[in-house]
Amino acid sequence: MSAESAIAVFDRNQAEFLEDLETFLRFESISAQSAHAADMQACAQWVSGQLAAAGLDARVLPTARHPVVLADTGPASSPESLTLLFYGHYDVQPVGDLKLWKSPPFEPTIRDGAIYARGSADDKGQLMTHLAAMRCWRQTGQSWPVRIKFIIEGEEEIGSPNLPDVLRKHADELACDYVVLSDTAKHDDETPALACATRGLVYKEVAIEGPSHDLHSGQYGGAVANPANVLADIIASLKDDRGRVTIPGFYDDVRPLTEPEQTQLNEVGITDADLLAATGSPAPAGEVGYTSAERCTARPTLDVNGLLAGYTGEGAATIIPTRAVAKVSMRLVADQDYQRISQAFDQAVRSACPPTVRLAIANHSHCAPYLAPTDSPGMRAAAAALTASFGKAPVFTREGGTLPILPLFRQVLRADSIMLGFAVPDCNLHSPNEFFHVRDFENGTRCILHFLDKICESR
Amino acid sequence: MSAESAIAVFDRNQAEFLEDLETFLRFESISAQSAHAADMQACAQWVSGQLAAAGLDARVLPTARHPVVLADTGPASSPESLTLLFYGHYDVQPVGDLKLWKSPPFEPTIRDGAIYARGSADDKGQLMTHLAAMRCWRQTGQSWPVRIKFIIEGEEEIGSPNLPDVLRKHADELACDYVVLSDTAKHDDETPALACATRGLVYKEVAIEGPSHDLHSGQYGGAVANPANVLADIIASLKDDRGRVTIPGFYDDVRPLTEPEQTQLNEVGITDADLLAATGSPAPAGEVGYTSAERCTARPTLDVNGLLAGYTGEGAATIIPTRAVAKVSMRLVADQDYQRISQAFDQAVRSACPPTVRLAIANHSHCAPYLAPTDSPGMRAAAAALTASFGKAPVFTREGGTLPILPLFRQVLRADSIMLGFAVPDCNLHSPNEFFHVRDFENGTRCILHFLDKICESR
Repeated sequence: MSAESAIAVFDRNQAEFLEDLETFLRFESISAQSAHAADMQACAQWVSGQLAAAGLDARVLPTARHPVVLADTGPASSPESLTLLFYGHYDVQPVGDLKLWKSPPFEPTIRDGAIYARGSADDKGQLMTHLAAMRCWRQTGQSWPVRIKFIIEGEEEIGSPNLPDVLRKHADELACDYVVLSDTAKHDDETPALACATRGLVYKEVAIEGPSHDLHSGQYGGAVANPANVLADIIASLKDDRGRVTIPGFYDDVRPLTEPEQTQLNEVGITDADLLAATGSPAPAGEVGYTSAERCTARPTLDVNGLLAGYTGEGAATIIPTRAVAKVSMRLVADQDYQRISQAFDQAVRSACPPTVRLAIANHSHCAPYLAPTDSPGMRAAAAALTASFGKAPVFTREGGTLPILPLFRQVLRADSIMLGFAVPDCNLHSPNEFFHVRDFENGTRCILHFLDKICESR
Repeated sequence: MSAESAIAVFDRNQAEFLEDLETFLRFESISAQSAHAADMQACAQWVSGQLAAAGLDARVLPTARHPVVLADTGPASSPESLTLLFYGHYDVQPVGDLKLWKSPPFEPTIRDGAIYARGSADDKGQLMTHLAAMRCWRQTGQSWPVRIKFIIEGEEEIGSPNLPDVLRKHADELACDYVVLSDTAKHDDETPALACATRGLVYKEVAIEGPSHDLHSGQYGGAVANPANVLADIIASLKDDRGRVTIPGFYDDVRPLTEPEQTQLNEVGITDADLLAATGSPAPAGEVGYTSAERCTARPTLDVNGLLAGYTGEGAATIIPTRAVAKVSMRLVADQDYQRISQAFDQAVRSACPPTVRLAIANHSHCAPYLAPTDSPGMRAAAAALTASFGKAPVFTREGGTLPILPLFRQVLRADSIMLGFAVPDCNLHSPNEFFHVRDFENGTRCILHFLDKICESR
C-alpha cells in the first residue's frame, strides 16, 4: 500500500517534524491583535514554504486583513481521481493571562507526552499533521494518488471575514470533491470522532419601545404598555409548555432522525448525568419526547441570550422603562432554511406585539445548519483511516454549535467536509496551557496518509 | 369671623413674611448630603423659632440622623374642639447641575411673580404658609380655635427613615383628628386640589438561576432550562391579555369606585390625549374596561421596572445565561393589603416557576395604599377654605404614586390627612429652577387661616 512507505518516512523523521511543529508554534500569529500583523505574514510564508517543500504549487494570497495560503498538487495521474481540499488556519487565539501559563504560550514545551503552546491543538498542531503527511508522501517519490489542494486562512479566530470572498473568487481553482479539516476534537481521549453535523444559527435582537422616556410607575403605571412586560409576553409566546417553538412552520423542514441515527446518537451523545455535571443546571429540560443527546444536537432551539430593560442596579427604582431589549437566537438543524426561519421569527414576533408599543427587530448573524451523510465514500475512507491509525473505530458525532465554513464550502464549492479531529476534548482550547498529545500528532499524520490510500480504494 | 383679622395681619405684613421665607430658603438643608448636617441643625432651630414666635411650645427632637421639630399650642379653649397636626419637611433635594440654575439655588430670587430657590415649592415655601398663618393668628391676640400641633421632619427627601419611630414613640403627644400638609400640587395653575388617595406599593426582585455559569448556547442549547426564557414565562403569566393581573386574589379587596367617584375622577383625571402627550407612548393601554384616569389612580397595577440577563452589550454572544433577574412592582389601591398581595405574588411566581431552575424572590419595599373620604368634616372645611382663598372650588384627586407617610399617620395616629397643595404642577420639583408663585404663597397662607375657621364651623 502506498501510505505505508510514507508512514515509514514519518516514523524515521518524527523528531524533525516535531521540531517543525515547534517552529510553527513560535509564530505569534494572533489574528485579533493588529500588533501581530507582521507575525501573521511571516507565519503564512512559513506555511506556504512547507507546502512548497512538499512539491505543491503554493502561494500567499493577500486579503483585506490577513493572508490566505493556497496550494495545489496539480492534476493526479489518474484523470478520474478525486480532488481533496485541505482546510486549516494558522492564526491563534489571544493568550489571556500569561501568569496562568505553566510555560510561555509561544515557547512550545513538551511535558508528559504533550506539546504545550498557544495553537498546539487549535489549529497549528492538527494542521501540521496535514503538512507533515504531504512532505512524507513527497519523500517516497510516489505520484499523488488524488489531486490535493490547500486553503489555510489566518482569520478563523476572528470569524473568517474574508474567507467567503476568497472562496467565491477562487471557486474554480478550489473545486474539490471533499473538504478535509482537522480542527475538531476526538470523542474522548481514546476514541476518534467524525463530526457529521453542526447546527445553524439565526440571531436576532428584539427591541420594544414604549414611552419616550422612563416614566414614574406610580404616575402612569397601568395606563401605558410597559415595554418590559410586552417583551416578556412576546418571548413567552415563542415556546409552549412542552418546550416546542411555536413559530409557525419552525419544524416544517426539520429532517427527522432515522432509527439507526437516533440509536447511534444516543449511544455516543451526552448523558443526563454528564449534562448536569457540565452545566450545573438543576435538571435536564427541553423539548418533550427527546433525550438530552438529541436536544443538544439534532433538534432546533430558541434561547434568550440577553435581556435588558429599565433599572438594573442595586435596590429599587419605580420606573416604567422606555425600552426593553432581548437578544434571541435559534440553533437550526438540517434541513431548516435560515432565511425562512428568520422571516418566520420576525412574523411571529410582529404578530405577538401589540400596537401599544413600537417594535424593531435587528439581525445579528445567521448561518445555515450542516449535515453530511455518514456513508459517503469520503466518510467511509475517513472512518477506515481513523481506525487504522488510532486503533479504534470512530464515532459519528453531531455538534450542537455552528461552524459557518461547512455550509459555506458546501454552498460555494458544492463539497461536503470531512472533519478528522485529533485533539482530545479537554485540550484547553482558547485557554491557558493549550496542549496537543505528541501521540495524537503522530497518529494524526498517519491518519492523513492512510486517508489518501483509503479514499482511492473507496472509488 | 376669626380668620379675617388674621388675614388682615398677613396682608399688612406680607413683605416681612416673604423675607422670612427667603431666610428659610437660604439654609442649605440638603438631607442626603452629610456635609450639610450643620445646615440641617440650624434650619431645624430656625423652624422651631418660628413656631415659638407664634406662641407654640416648640422643640427640636434629635433622631438618628436629622432632627424633627415638634410643637403644640396646648389644649384649645373649648374642650370638645378638634386637634390638627400640621406636617411638613424642612429638608430639600440636592441641587444637581448648578449651571442649569438661572439664579443660585440657595439665593432666593423673585422673577415674574415667583420665588426661585431649591425648596421654594418642596416644601419650604408651602410649609412657610403654615408658619406664617400661625404667627398671624397669634398677632390677633385670639385664642387658638382648635388645638394645633406640628411635626416637621428633615428626612422626607431621603425616605423618612426615622419618622415611623418618632411617631410611634410620641403617638400620645401627636394624637390628632387630622393631619394637615401642604406638600402636593394644585390641579392646574388656577384650580386647587384635594388629593384623597395614593396607591400602595409592593416591590419585588425575582431571580432565576439555572446553569452554574454562562453556557455555550450551541453546546447545551435545548437541553437545559434558560433562566431568561423562564423569567419571561413567569412575567407573562402574571397578566392576562385583558391587562388584568392573574395573581389569585389580587383584586379581592379592591374597593370599587362608586358612580359619583367614577364620574368625578373622569372629569378631573388625565385624558388619553394628555397621557400620550406626557408619556410619548404610541397608545393608551391597560386593564380593559377602565379609562386612563381610572387606570392611573384607582386600579392596581403590575409593572416590570427592570430586566437583566446574559449578554447585553453590542452585537451578539451565544450564551445561555446563568441568571436572569426582574424587578417587578405592584401599585395597590384601597383596600388591598400589601402583606397579602406580597404573599400572593410570591405564591404565584413559585407556582409558575419550573423545577428546572432555582428561584429567589427578594422584597425591596412595600407601602399600604391610602384613601380618605372626601365628605369628612375636615375635607369639607378644606374645600371651603381653598374656595375662599383661591376663588375656585378644588377638585378631589387621586394620586397614582405612593406616599408612605399617609398610611403611616393613619396606622399610628388613626388620623386621615388633608393635603392642601399650593404649588403649581410644573414647579420644577426636584429640578433646577424650582419656584413657588408669590400669589400662591399668599393665597396658601390665607387658606390655612380660613381652614382654622371652617374646621370649627364644620363641627
